[in-house]
Amino acid sequence: MMQPPEQGADETRFRQATRYDLPAIIGLIADDGLGRGRDDASLPLDASYVNAFNAMEADGNQVMMVGELRGEVVAYLQITFIPGLSRKGAWRGQIESVRVACRLRGLGIGGRLLDHAVGLCRARGCRLVQLTSDKTRAEAHRFYGRLGFVASHDGFKLVL
Amino acid sequence: MMQPPEQGADETRFRQATRYDLPAIIGLIADDGLGRGRDDASLPLDASYVNAFNAMEADGNQVMMVGELRGEVVAYLQITFIPGLSRKGAWRGQIESVRVACRLRGLGIGGRLLDHAVGLCRARGCRLVQLTSDKTRAEAHRFYGRLGFVASHDGFKLVL
Repeated sequence: MMQPPEQGADETRFRQATRYDLPAIIGLIADDGLGRGRDDASLPLDASYVNAFNAMEADGNQVMMVGELRGEVVAYLQITFIPGLSRKGAWRGQIESVRVACRLRGLGIGGRLLDHAVGLCRARGCRLVQLTSDKTRAEAHRFYGRLGFVASHDGFKLVL
Repeated sequence: MMQPPEQGADETRFRQATRYDLPAIIGLIADDGLGRGRDDASLPLDASYVNAFNAMEADGNQVMMVGELRGEVVAYLQITFIPGLSRKGAWRGQIESVRVACRLRGLGIGGRLLDHAVGLCRARGCRLVQLTSDKTRAEAHRFYGRLGFVASHDGFKLVL
């Protein structure tokens, strides 16, 4: 008998992504109200995804983290470790592209994913963790607030 | 006769920072309503600034850009080039720690500094330029709006 998805979500394990995870990760990135249309998970994957993966893997300041549940990639985020002069030369951990599989939302996977990411930032000596979230994602904003993040800034984008 | 500061501001030239610029850059970073108290420009500079400068200089995805006017560093910003999977593997240019010397504000130096930064992002193939700005900096927000940036996101921070 198949387990309903809401059982066992706390068995999700978090680890660095490998290239074998890439199709599943792009599936998560594309399956998003705002990302839809911007991304394309059809196989074979667009070469631009493979190029980006290679660039990230070669860069010691990038982490691609996946959540795996029963052999399936169900969550993703990217961390970028950024050195800087401000705040007495503080390193920042910046989080991008947070995704949890739609059918597994609300089960605590996202919270544990972020906890893992913040833990990695701490281990790397970051003094600040930062992310931006589209102003229309009200639910995500409550989620980040519960995790202790403060929406102190406006996030500006310029599409080239 | 000394030139008043508002004359010749358009002679400001933009270039990569060198380690000789570091004291002046930290001076700009510390001389800021919000940064004050977080940074310390007293000499000799705290070793943490030198360590951060070295980390940034060794990282091909970091640019420290200064504006120089008559031999003096009067503006600064940092660009981080960030690879990512979202938006079909788009690179982003992220701008941090934007500063223009207080006495030279309103003369167009900041706009030209940002134009140079956006030009570098374009030359590196970025498809997006992003930055965050404290919600209390109303004047800065109008400035970024005039440059074409859209405040579509909230910026969340977690201090560790």
